[in-house]
Amino acid sequence: MNIGFVGLGAMGQAMAHRLIAAGHDLHVWNRTRSKADALVAQGAHLARTPAELASRVEIVFSMLFDDATTEAVTFGEDGIAQGMTDTGLHICCSTLSLAQARRLRDGHDARGQAYISANVLGRPPAAADGTLYIIAAGKPERIARAEPVLDCLGQTLFRVGEDPVQANLVKLSLNFMIYTTIEQMAEIFTLNEKFGTDPAKVFEIMTNSFYTAPVHRNYGGLMVKHDYDHPGAPVTLGLKDIEMFLGAGGEQGVPLPFASIMRDRLIASVGAGDAERDFVVLQERIRQESGLAPR
Amino acid sequence: MNIGFVGLGAMGQAMAHRLIAAGHDLHVWNRTRSKADALVAQGAHLARTPAELASRVEIVFSMLFDDATTEAVTFGEDGIAQGMTDTGLHICCSTLSLAQARRLRDGHDARGQAYISANVLGRPPAAADGTLYIIAAGKPERIARAEPVLDCLGQTLFRVGEDPVQANLVKLSLNFMIYTTIEQMAEIFTLNEKFGTDPAKVFEIMTNSFYTAPVHRNYGGLMVKHDYDHPGAPVTLGLKDIEMFLGAGGEQGVPLPFASIMRDRLIASVGAGDAERDFVVLQERIRQESGLAPR
Amino acid sequence: MNIGFVGLGAMGQAMAHRLIAAGHDLHVWNRTRSKADALVAQGAHLARTPAELASRVEIVFSMLFDDATTEAVTFGEDGIAQGMTDTGLHICCSTLSLAQARRLRDGHDARGQAYISANVLGRPPAAADGTLYIIAAGKPERIARAEPVLDCLGQTLFRVGEDPVQANLVKLSLNFMIYTTIEQMAEIFTLNEKFGTDPAKVFEIMTNSFYTAPVHRNYGGLMVKHDYDHPGAPVTLGLKDIEMFLGAGGEQGVPLPFASIMRDRLIASVGAGDAERDFVVLQERIRQESGLAPR
Amino acid sequence: MNIGFVGLGAMGQAMAHRLIAAGHDLHVWNRTRSKADALVAQGAHLARTPAELASRVEIVFSMLFDDATTEAVTFGEDGIAQGMTDTGLHICCSTLSLAQARRLRDGHDARGQAYISANVLGRPPAAADGTLYIIAAGKPERIARAEPVLDCLGQTLFRVGEDPVQANLVKLSLNFMIYTTIEQMAEIFTLNEKFGTDPAKVFEIMTNSFYTAPVHRNYGGLMVKHDYDHPGAPVTLGLKDIEMFLGAGGEQGVPLPFASIMRDRLIASVGAGDAERDFVVLQERIRQESGLAPR
Repeated sequence: MNIGFVGLGAMGQAMAHRLIAAGHDLHVWNRTRSKADALVAQGAHLARTPAELASRVEIVFSMLFDDATTEAVTFGEDGIAQGMTDTGLHICCSTLSLAQARRLRDGHDARGQAYISANVLGRPPAAADGTLYIIAAGKPERIARAEPVLDCLGQTLFRVGEDPVQANLVKLSLNFMIYTTIEQMAEIFTLNEKFGTDPAKVFEIMTNSFYTAPVHRNYGGLMVKHDYDHPGAPVTLGLKDIEMFLGAGGEQGVPLPFASIMRDRLIASVGAGDAERDFVVLQERIRQESGLAPR
Repeated sequence: MNIGFVGLGAMGQAMAHRLIAAGHDLHVWNRTRSKADALVAQGAHLARTPAELASRVEIVFSMLFDDATTEAVTFGEDGIAQGMTDTGLHICCSTLSLAQARRLRDGHDARGQAYISANVLGRPPAAADGTLYIIAAGKPERIARAEPVLDCLGQTLFRVGEDPVQANLVKLSLNFMIYTTIEQMAEIFTLNEKFGTDPAKVFEIMTNSFYTAPVHRNYGGLMVKHDYDHPGAPVTLGLKDIEMFLGAGGEQGVPLPFASIMRDRLIASVGAGDAERDFVVLQERIRQESGLAPR
Repeated sequence: MNIGFVGLGAMGQAMAHRLIAAGHDLHVWNRTRSKADALVAQGAHLARTPAELASRVEIVFSMLFDDATTEAVTFGEDGIAQGMTDTGLHICCSTLSLAQARRLRDGHDARGQAYISANVLGRPPAAADGTLYIIAAGKPERIARAEPVLDCLGQTLFRVGEDPVQANLVKLSLNFMIYTTIEQMAEIFTLNEKFGTDPAKVFEIMTNSFYTAPVHRNYGGLMVKHDYDHPGAPVTLGLKDIEMFLGAGGEQGVPLPFASIMRDRLIASVGAGDAERDFVVLQERIRQESGLAPR
Repeated sequence: MNIGFVGLGAMGQAMAHRLIAAGHDLHVWNRTRSKADALVAQGAHLARTPAELASRVEIVFSMLFDDATTEAVTFGEDGIAQGMTDTGLHICCSTLSLAQARRLRDGHDARGQAYISANVLGRPPAAADGTLYIIAAGKPERIARAEPVLDCLGQTLFRVGEDPVQANLVKLSLNFMIYTTIEQMAEIFTLNEKFGTDPAKVFEIMTNSFYTAPVHRNYGGLMVKHDYDHPGAPVTLGLKDIEMFLGAGGEQGVPLPFASIMRDRLIASVGAGDAERDFVVLQERIRQESGLAPR
């Protein structure tokens, strides 16, 4: 199938490679052109604009950094919407605010264009393996059209509902799970450390009893090693996620006290000069405010 | 081996049955005597007092409701400490405050008596199966003495350290994980519910991706069914646990903001008349303050 | 002096009347034209657009509802900036986000136009009396030019600094004081009420000992009477203020836990259907979550 | 009148001096005897025990450090209750937990002894001047008996109710106002400081507009000077107060989120090594977590 991919960050590139490997005819575009080099070397076609790309393919994936970039690349000059054919489908994988997710949905609707949201869980290696989890929302027939391609990218395809924005909210929710799980463990690890028990021992007990989920193992493992400097994702990204989750709560009338605490932890991490470190560094806030020496 | 068991609530009874089934010669005592009937029918010996029980056995287990009961049954008149032989060992399994855990340790020390803490994770059916997780702390040679018996009760024996109180703090920490995981999911479920997405769908995605731990499955499962009335454990127990965890933070100089929020949720649950319902009912606080109809 | 006034809500009208009473030649504009009627009857000149108004006067005051309105009326088509003369001065009195306050400052700077911020404390009757408190920031010579007119509006003129945005942050800070003082008193009143002590008695003790400020007397007085329906200002306004204060904390790297709690209280008040009631109604959140009957 | 005074800390001594100055025949007792020297030099009679003291007077005041001391000095061996005459009256001025306040009330009731609670607001100089505020609760005829003496100590006598414990809760409530007002101002001062505005300027605006209460002036004044080392009262005292207020909320079913935050601030102040500094030092927590250099 002719497929387009817009936004070639670490995750986008891994997904794009997977699509080429599966035999699809891939067209790519990225603002910083050099990020497309490896894909072009593997046979991908480089488009000059998102619009050009969209005009050549049946499905356009986008995986962009934030609300503003997504808006510009979709509806701006030479954007995806300008090039989409009558039979095209835009699948947006970006983590977005509800407001932006609605603008995407409504903007495509107004143009009579097909659009679904397909948020992904997992890191780039899982994308390369095709073992992502995919959370899709939108009109069922559109998801059905995308299904063969999505199945190549992910091990499981969850369908959340007919409104594309529903997938965006689930994605924000699952990211919130990450930050709050770090805080849970940070409170526990710090308290036990001050009491004289090695957090690594507590982590071992947790992950060998009832706290065995990947979210526990992955982030807890980084925390007990104080591994703050090989960031998967930085504090600033965490803060963006939490602000979007709080924004969703605000618009829906749901007070979210855990999210407010995470916002404060992440802001204090910026204040402490840790903005670009992996967001597990937020455990330093509680360690240090408890009088433990910085790690 | 001659083993004593003091405190025959649901968990104590299940553990005691397991010890009989394993062929031990079991001596039992409970304040409410009728709770010993089934065990006596299986061959357990009923002691008239904890002291009498302790005088007959090599190891005394206690599994009592709270600090005050543990103190009274251990060091009060006709208590365990009055009957323990020179070679006896007291293994306390109760969830205690750090202050009470220290009083047990120091009280036995002052009397030249052997004592360890062995907190357990799991519900009564796991005790009956011998599949508990056991978190032990105390002098290594004492844990070694207890090991064959502990291995009969649990699938894994974790050793936390030489100070028995360390096990008590790990136990409080893991209980804190439960309450805060409920709050995480309550914030997510409520926000998605208000947005029009069935929480059961979100729960399905969570527990089939990165949020697969028993703590997610067990409590999340009750939450999406609004199953508040077959309590494993009531709000009042949760409040006691959280107060003890906060007390530990207070004495160790560790601010625990998530724990403070849980305390408020549980207090508000008491205020709402839900004191004796299963503590997962705390999700009603956020549901109702978001304007959703009570379930 | 020829003075312009844009934005004739309750506060704007009261300030405008005061300026006419002081003998100034007043030009007025408001989107809803009828709000200018009373002023025109007193001799004010009605302008067709903000630009026209600005072209006729030495000083333009604006007192508009929010960021978006302020931006549009200042820099939009036929906006203030289009009409301002070389010697004109724009004095903005609106409560704004820091981001919008910067846009005003920078937009006028880029056009070579003079601008200061002059936020006011007090309600319309104080404006009518000329007993507002005025918090001004901007270039000292510009404040000096405005001083005779500001002195007619307020009993005290505070100068915060040379950057107009500083006044906006002080204004947001003082509004934050209001909401958090309500929460302080709500926690106290509710706890004493549940204990059987009339909150009015506690209020009497507070306001006759060390808690005697207008902020205590005014809001506490409404709270003990449960007077939620003669709104000075609704919950939605409070939420807007708190979001802007949190936004300032976010950009400056300052975690603001009290502000986060207020945000949750106000969101829950929206959820409870109290969006348009006076924001002192937020005390109902704590009353009701403590099991007291709604008032 | 023959009056006894037990507990001669800074406040107790100042009150005792005032009573002598008013012409009363004063009997005194303090655990550390030397603290009575100045009073004895002025004509006070030194009692060997609280019981002996109580046997000689019509009214016994007590002003003791905490729950445990109050319990011991009242109902312990040679305690006040052992010496009280049939016509005696015990007036307790200490800041107590509700639980201890009830034990005092019920212990005296069980002995057929008269008791009221009379908590005071103000610092020792106000006691010396007779300008305290006095919050009394108990049977009206008992308060009436005490009134002439209380009027000599305080400028205003507030009657809260017939249950002595009501006064204790009001006292805890007013202390909570102090800590939370410090937090309000700390959030504001820190945010404005990071923005480049001197907190002293903000303080000036506050205390000359709507935030003029002694609680604002006194604590805000210390805060802007970073005057943390001439403690009126240390962090540890603040923590004790907040724990008692939270305990009251817990027993009455009232969630108190502001109090939880204050507890965390004070615990973190202990963790930072500031336990014995004036509790206004808690503003350092927010300053430092925002990346400002310690003061």
